[in-house]
Amino acid sequence: MNTIGHFFRFTAFGESHGPAIGGVVDGMPAGLTLDLTAIQEALDRRRPGTDPRTSTRREPDRIKINSGIFEGKTTGTPIAFTIDNCDARSTDYDNMRDKIRPGHADATYTLKYGLRDHRGGGRASARTTAATVAAGAIAAQFIAVYGIKVKAVASQIGRATTPEGMLRELEAARAAGDTVGGAVTCIATGCPAGLGEPIFGKLQARLAAAMMSINAAKSFEYGDGTDAARLHGSESLDTPTGLDSALHTSENHCGGILGGISTGEDITMRVCFKPIATMMRPVETIDLKGSPCILDAKGRHDVCAVPRAVPVVEAMACLTLADALLAARCSRI
Amino acid sequence: MNTIGHFFRFTAFGESHGPAIGGVVDGMPAGLTLDLTAIQEALDRRRPGTDPRTSTRREPDRIKINSGIFEGKTTGTPIAFTIDNCDARSTDYDNMRDKIRPGHADATYTLKYGLRDHRGGGRASARTTAATVAAGAIAAQFIAVYGIKVKAVASQIGRATTPEGMLRELEAARAAGDTVGGAVTCIATGCPAGLGEPIFGKLQARLAAAMMSINAAKSFEYGDGTDAARLHGSESLDTPTGLDSALHTSENHCGGILGGISTGEDITMRVCFKPIATMMRPVETIDLKGSPCILDAKGRHDVCAVPRAVPVVEAMACLTLADALLAARCSRI
Amino acid sequence: MNTIGHFFRFTAFGESHGPAIGGVVDGMPAGLTLDLTAIQEALDRRRPGTDPRTSTRREPDRIKINSGIFEGKTTGTPIAFTIDNCDARSTDYDNMRDKIRPGHADATYTLKYGLRDHRGGGRASARTTAATVAAGAIAAQFIAVYGIKVKAVASQIGRATTPEGMLRELEAARAAGDTVGGAVTCIATGCPAGLGEPIFGKLQARLAAAMMSINAAKSFEYGDGTDAARLHGSESLDTPTGLDSALHTSENHCGGILGGISTGEDITMRVCFKPIATMMRPVETIDLKGSPCILDAKGRHDVCAVPRAVPVVEAMACLTLADALLAARCSRI
Amino acid sequence: MNTIGHFFRFTAFGESHGPAIGGVVDGMPAGLTLDLTAIQEALDRRRPGTDPRTSTRREPDRIKINSGIFEGKTTGTPIAFTIDNCDARSTDYDNMRDKIRPGHADATYTLKYGLRDHRGGGRASARTTAATVAAGAIAAQFIAVYGIKVKAVASQIGRATTPEGMLRELEAARAAGDTVGGAVTCIATGCPAGLGEPIFGKLQARLAAAMMSINAAKSFEYGDGTDAARLHGSESLDTPTGLDSALHTSENHCGGILGGISTGEDITMRVCFKPIATMMRPVETIDLKGSPCILDAKGRHDVCAVPRAVPVVEAMACLTLADALLAARCSRI
Repeated sequence: MNTIGHFFRFTAFGESHGPAIGGVVDGMPAGLTLDLTAIQEALDRRRPGTDPRTSTRREPDRIKINSGIFEGKTTGTPIAFTIDNCDARSTDYDNMRDKIRPGHADATYTLKYGLRDHRGGGRASARTTAATVAAGAIAAQFIAVYGIKVKAVASQIGRATTPEGMLRELEAARAAGDTVGGAVTCIATGCPAGLGEPIFGKLQARLAAAMMSINAAKSFEYGDGTDAARLHGSESLDTPTGLDSALHTSENHCGGILGGISTGEDITMRVCFKPIATMMRPVETIDLKGSPCILDAKGRHDVCAVPRAVPVVEAMACLTLADALLAARCSRI
Repeated sequence: MNTIGHFFRFTAFGESHGPAIGGVVDGMPAGLTLDLTAIQEALDRRRPGTDPRTSTRREPDRIKINSGIFEGKTTGTPIAFTIDNCDARSTDYDNMRDKIRPGHADATYTLKYGLRDHRGGGRASARTTAATVAAGAIAAQFIAVYGIKVKAVASQIGRATTPEGMLRELEAARAAGDTVGGAVTCIATGCPAGLGEPIFGKLQARLAAAMMSINAAKSFEYGDGTDAARLHGSESLDTPTGLDSALHTSENHCGGILGGISTGEDITMRVCFKPIATMMRPVETIDLKGSPCILDAKGRHDVCAVPRAVPVVEAMACLTLADALLAARCSRI
Repeated sequence: MNTIGHFFRFTAFGESHGPAIGGVVDGMPAGLTLDLTAIQEALDRRRPGTDPRTSTRREPDRIKINSGIFEGKTTGTPIAFTIDNCDARSTDYDNMRDKIRPGHADATYTLKYGLRDHRGGGRASARTTAATVAAGAIAAQFIAVYGIKVKAVASQIGRATTPEGMLRELEAARAAGDTVGGAVTCIATGCPAGLGEPIFGKLQARLAAAMMSINAAKSFEYGDGTDAARLHGSESLDTPTGLDSALHTSENHCGGILGGISTGEDITMRVCFKPIATMMRPVETIDLKGSPCILDAKGRHDVCAVPRAVPVVEAMACLTLADALLAARCSRI
Repeated sequence: MNTIGHFFRFTAFGESHGPAIGGVVDGMPAGLTLDLTAIQEALDRRRPGTDPRTSTRREPDRIKINSGIFEGKTTGTPIAFTIDNCDARSTDYDNMRDKIRPGHADATYTLKYGLRDHRGGGRASARTTAATVAAGAIAAQFIAVYGIKVKAVASQIGRATTPEGMLRELEAARAAGDTVGGAVTCIATGCPAGLGEPIFGKLQARLAAAMMSINAAKSFEYGDGTDAARLHGSESLDTPTGLDSALHTSENHCGGILGGISTGEDITMRVCFKPIATMMRPVETIDLKGSPCILDAKGRHDVCAVPRAVPVVEAMACLTLADALLAARCSRI
């Protein structure tokens, strides 16, 4: 359940305020020269405190690799890594121990497990995405061998879709002690045709599962996405124009996937995120006994999930494509 | 890859014009009195030819159960079933053998596998959803024991969102030899709190994978969905109002899931579908050699995926919830 | 749970006296010309009634393939098949419905599931191995492409290890209304080096799981097997003599596997089977209420599991090697 | 591939001379008070240097738990742990870098992956069983809640089966610069009836896979094991004597499992181990280019795998039973 992938598998672990987060990447083929600096750079992109738009928790987020690499190369054995939790001010959360934060997993974890690590959201914290980013950066180096590149950008914040407008939405939300939603658009270029499996292994199904596992994600779209609902067939036609190792079409309404299998053209996706649930203002809620109370969030919180979600979306795409790449090795005699 | 679920597993098989489609449901607990009539009724709802809005292929779609039931009850062993393909006019497709139908899986299957069963779309045909519907109807009876009911409806066709308007959009598209997209909205009521697992087993991740495996689906949303992107935290607040075996909130922006785990309130989802790719008019395309040609579709085709997708969406939700129900049995000592 | 394999997966279903047994083979690469006659021949070898040494139940055991084959070739989609249960004399078992047959799964199924299909052993019947044999015969054709051949023989019956002696043991047991145990030895030749994965995916671990899933199997050995326990290192040395695409050694104590990975030399295994539990004589037992009673087996029963287990052992080896062959495609960049 | 279990899953990582070994235990239910001292004690039992019979590598083998525990209790989230490799004298292995050690995985890893971490056997080292023992000790605490206890003992070394005789065999082998094989017998008491699943999930199949994944294991037997081959049905009869929450029988030839499902009586197993391949004497071999050479092992090596395998066998049994216990929660409505 904390594992994603069938051929290229990532098993994640860790809580916001436990000793460390991390994971095990299993299934990486042998012989890849792994660039550790690139992994650290990906972590740095996601790290809080590097961007004025994000939370002020300061974590060095240094990755330590425990296995699977020998003289700089992958050996075919599991690549395990840990990222220590250093700046974990657990006492910030003492006053929230028995309170249910609206829009958070506090109540659902308690209902499911009978207890929960309340500090910083525990396993449900966005901090856990650091492990995802590290694993994704490992996967990225594998798929790059086959020419695949994944690039995500913030494409909407609140009602704005331009860089300037998005920045204004962020500042306005912050000034109001409010938070705001947004969207990340992601494109994978250089994908060979033939990735994805029929029916339940469709590439879009795997990508959707991957993206919807990201904290605060509320939707997954590919190609025309929700726009497809209002279009006619004549308006969304991808006329085939050529067939070599890929299918070429006049446009790319299909988002680079047909019948669950990549065409060889760009794979285009969009993920929408809800506003961060914790606002810097007092809100009404209840405690674990059901009694009404006021929650006045301390701790350090982002105004919008999108800026830090960008590398996480990339990571999930890379993990999914790495898995699909290996699966595709088994499609023919 | 043709299996979905971890605890409650469904393995599907079959092509549009092969001898039969079907599947194996593995993991159904013993002791459930299985109502075969209800399964057949679900199949009848999806069946072409029963609705003036849908394709005219006539299939009796009789389910035959081969195992797993003894004296009317599930035995804990796999429930295997087949649905024969009777009205399979393969010759309808002879003229399309070497042509690539725009918006279909013809080219991608060929690129992936080096060959394909071209008749009626083969494994990529929407016919395969009959097996899904049958398995979903079995899952539905299991989750009903726990009070869970799943109900989907057509909520958008083209630009229309009212019943009358949707019907008009369908008729207009048909009259124009065109096709049209749409959306299905699905609600699961009666779900206990605690379904779903952290991180990669989040309930919305499983539901997204399930829904995105349906033919022609282009997006998955839950709760506020894509609307969440433009909202502020203060606009999308679910204020907790009570906590018993479920978390009760003032509204349900979260769609009944927080941190990947069900709250106990209604789970709300929406799936958008692209227009059916095959139109009843000649279209430009290429053949398998890459040469331009004209495709004049014969065969029998729907104008819109939505009407027949409704029971498929329900089935995928039921399968996912059945899996999550069993998983939840393992959450506590 | 009714699925074996990770890359090349076989999902089985069926009870002794249900409508049909069968399964779904998922993961077969596309492009293999499948010889259906060879599958039927493998079934015929396992079939009761063809050998004077085996049970007298008469089943034609005709395989029907429902999907995954187009114009004689595998398409990369699941190959589903059924084998009808024709000669199912359920009334033979009426007098055993409430009795617990010693050495059978009657009590354990009832304890686990709360009910059971008592007819002919239900899901626990050796009849289910017909589905295994069919799937194995499909896998055999895949691995044959890579030069792998699997051959099993009866190597021990009772205390005898020669063909003549084994036959005498069988006849003596039958004459006494008794049953007798035995062993099957299996060799896989032509295996490339590099099959098997470290730690939990070791080739011998997969083979052991496969063999121990066969009815009445009590042990799995490979290479020196249990003899290894009494040997010294100097007695069981495989001195390396050459290294090309395989590791060549002076002897093959290791059974063709080192560190869980095939060396390229013959893989040698041995599986022991307990005497068939049902004897043609009255035995003391209890009923489901715990009261003592006498069981006088009717129905049709073998004297020894070994003759009919031979093709089942081969099938399980083929399925395991097919899975390992696909896995090995992912070991290097 | 480095994961075992379906419901209670253990993912292992690590090489003999990498920074650390360890793993992730996923699926542990919430609410168990975890005794860390007991885990450390299990590690100490397996640790080299604590027993005059075993290797002289000195490792403190301190476990560090990174996640999944809050205020002493399991939270339902993954329990990740690392064990640092401290006493890793890699230079001991420099002279063996290009040599193939007879009976080891050197050649097979190289053939499979194209490269290998040669230091101390890399991933194929018995050192990796420390992670298994830690995970098994976690599983042991879970199954103990249900009354299950697992106990293994050395039951054979060379030709000896008595404690004194076994010690003599060890000393004789050591004195001769030789090594010797042996066997471990394992009993699980207190198992509820109903563990194990039909066909490929049979309890003995899971146990066999688990045991055969241990370094140097050559066979798995349960109940009568290989002896069953020479017995008659009348000699191996387990006459049922009572049925309550378990099936009671006059004897336990079946080893506590019938039809793949536990009866509720003791589960009895035996695992044979080959002599340690590395002997303290020069042996003939070849190098990676195929040229003959002499290998004079340095490093620190055991004379017999059995003493240190005892806690590993227990660990694998505990992991398997933990998985089966969770699976059994899903068997009935």
